[in-house]
Amino acid sequence: MSKAKLINLVKKAKVASQTLGILSTAHKNKTLCELADALITLTPDILKANAKDLKVAAQKDMAPAMLDRLTLNEKRVKDMADAVIQVAKLSDPVGQVVEEYNHNQLHIKRVRIPLGVIGMIYEARPNVTIDAASLCFKSGNAVVLRGGSEAFHSNTALLKIFKMVLRRSGLNENTAVMVPFTDRKAMIDLLKLDQYIDVIIPRGGEGLMSFIKEHASIPVIKHDKGVCGIFVDASAKVEPSLKIIENAKVQRPGVCNALETLYVHQDIAPKFLPLLAKKLLPLGVELRGDPAVRKIIPQAGRATKADWSTEYLSLTLAIKTVKGIDDAIANIRKYSSNHTESILTENAKNTALFLNSLDSSCVMVNTSTRFNDGGELGLGAEIGISTTKLHAYGPMGLRELTAIKFVVSSHYGIRT
Amino acid sequence: MSKAKLINLVKKAKVASQTLGILSTAHKNKTLCELADALITLTPDILKANAKDLKVAAQKDMAPAMLDRLTLNEKRVKDMADAVIQVAKLSDPVGQVVEEYNHNQLHIKRVRIPLGVIGMIYEARPNVTIDAASLCFKSGNAVVLRGGSEAFHSNTALLKIFKMVLRRSGLNENTAVMVPFTDRKAMIDLLKLDQYIDVIIPRGGEGLMSFIKEHASIPVIKHDKGVCGIFVDASAKVEPSLKIIENAKVQRPGVCNALETLYVHQDIAPKFLPLLAKKLLPLGVELRGDPAVRKIIPQAGRATKADWSTEYLSLTLAIKTVKGIDDAIANIRKYSSNHTESILTENAKNTALFLNSLDSSCVMVNTSTRFNDGGELGLGAEIGISTTKLHAYGPMGLRELTAIKFVVSSHYGIRT
Repeated sequence: MSKAKLINLVKKAKVASQTLGILSTAHKNKTLCELADALITLTPDILKANAKDLKVAAQKDMAPAMLDRLTLNEKRVKDMADAVIQVAKLSDPVGQVVEEYNHNQLHIKRVRIPLGVIGMIYEARPNVTIDAASLCFKSGNAVVLRGGSEAFHSNTALLKIFKMVLRRSGLNENTAVMVPFTDRKAMIDLLKLDQYIDVIIPRGGEGLMSFIKEHASIPVIKHDKGVCGIFVDASAKVEPSLKIIENAKVQRPGVCNALETLYVHQDIAPKFLPLLAKKLLPLGVELRGDPAVRKIIPQAGRATKADWSTEYLSLTLAIKTVKGIDDAIANIRKYSSNHTESILTENAKNTALFLNSLDSSCVMVNTSTRFNDGGELGLGAEIGISTTKLHAYGPMGLRELTAIKFVVSSHYGIRT
Repeated sequence: MSKAKLINLVKKAKVASQTLGILSTAHKNKTLCELADALITLTPDILKANAKDLKVAAQKDMAPAMLDRLTLNEKRVKDMADAVIQVAKLSDPVGQVVEEYNHNQLHIKRVRIPLGVIGMIYEARPNVTIDAASLCFKSGNAVVLRGGSEAFHSNTALLKIFKMVLRRSGLNENTAVMVPFTDRKAMIDLLKLDQYIDVIIPRGGEGLMSFIKEHASIPVIKHDKGVCGIFVDASAKVEPSLKIIENAKVQRPGVCNALETLYVHQDIAPKFLPLLAKKLLPLGVELRGDPAVRKIIPQAGRATKADWSTEYLSLTLAIKTVKGIDDAIANIRKYSSNHTESILTENAKNTALFLNSLDSSCVMVNTSTRFNDGGELGLGAEIGISTTKLHAYGPMGLRELTAIKFVVSSHYGIRT
């Protein structure tokens, strides 16, 4: 795609965004319900497009996990439609007054407004197209979608349906536009269109993240990797702690809030680690430990320095013994990716120290890391989990897709 | 400065930042009061350093306005110390619980934490050194200061005093570090240290902004220009409206919240503009208008297209007639810099349309644009006025120098 064509496309989204902020909640919700209906009705079209992508993928010898993420079926389209209904049900953040006060002669309100145009960059999963489009729409934002090449036909079919629904609802169809997958040059061009796009939200691997970081002049809210950690304190209750670790590591190892690095207090290690091995090894978890761990768990492989900061996204767990709470905190600061950390303890002082000292997006006590998720934390739906401290840190819901402006009134007030 | 040396310096600030988040409010306030005292006691040292900068400036034939901003005297140092006391008096945002709720088996809090390390890039005014250092310190952040070369000696002397106070207070003196003014290469190196710096806050002209935007991989909260607009609606009360325009344009024309572009409803123009000219011309304001304006005000010069989006920062005012509220909104969307816009009107419908349709950081009704300022809007103190929608939009106070993390507890909760 030429730069001129790209600018033309993105400009259209910018124009569309300017009237979205004053759209009524009822109009938005009605449109979303129509989108959900249309997805169900047009499921055959979606699956036909998806079949084209799957055919290309088969020729390319795609990894099974990626192939699975790419694959749509009736059930998955139904899930997509249900998620859209869910977004319709959430309260509209636009226009919400977050603060209201008088100061001297002024009456001041702080009011939520859409961010404007959101650039969404993502890989394989076609459902992100509909998730992102519906969340951005409900929060009054236009969206520029740039999905992976492997899902091109599926994404095109899904967007076509949304555009049809927008037109039928009397709205600007450029509320959502798609940048066809193209070469790196076009991607770089896109990342520099700060005149038209207010924020880039990238979801993907490390390669994508560093590419975006290097080239974007548009502000970026990263949805980066989760090297999540759990610290088993000396006072931890053994049985429930084992259950939490199992849950955090095994329940769904391929996601960003799964456990990757376990820190165990040296005083509890001789008692705790054999029980942990007994629990995890039969579940197929590969353990990698420091020398102290390997003395206690002979089946554990040797962990290298790289293991402490690796996001495995698989059934592998790195285990490190620590001297105590301070050592655990120092290690987490050094190796974690600021995503999610949990302490397992019965010690109130250590709990406070852990929760206050660490600045990950979500810090927990006696809780599985798997709960760092928009739905689980009560946000209703999420566009992802931000690992950028600015603007939104942790799960981003509808509210996090807005900015806050000042609205000021007075009786012809002048400054002296 | 070599890249290795720069990294070493910034790393020290990062280490210092890790213990600032758990510093008590009392300790921080005591340190700030000692800083204020030290500034007064050591005023002679500061003025001696400032004299060196002024000597260099004199050789360079610096513009009078810039020379004025660079100049310190006893009164200005006293003002600086007073501002530090003011920051000490503000409530501490760190640790504030902004939300607390239960969701299923979880107890969830959202808690303010420091951003981490803030990179402050600014020009001429040495007082920014102390303002930024004290605001960052109070909000638990370490700061990397990079002031203009012209204030090098003044900034060095001021930072030296802060470091002395930090040491005496038992704190890490690298809580604030300074990058000596150097070549563009070192600046580019600095802008790419996203591993250590959490946000760049630049204050300065357009050249600086676009340079930073081009090179930064660190998130940037721009403090960009203010092309502020006022729309005089047909129903505006004439006398108070004239006073507001005078205030917005004349009271302090060199600042970002001063009025630059005036939009006048064509129906009120024949009555309003002659009175406006009568008010502003004797005050030395240069008027530039479109053909309709020039027919009514013969003394007005011709405005070119560039005038509608120019930040004069001087006693010049661009005036454009518009057909009505929609035309005014369309023009402001096209030409303003999203800083501050005000409508002067007695029409409630137009007020609502104006306040809802425009997404500038501050939208006002019957109020002077000069009020878009942290102090005036009740924030207590400000590090600047953000024109970036993300994170903080408009005046940034202490609270805007923090992020919000999730703190989650449960009774060994696992996800099913």
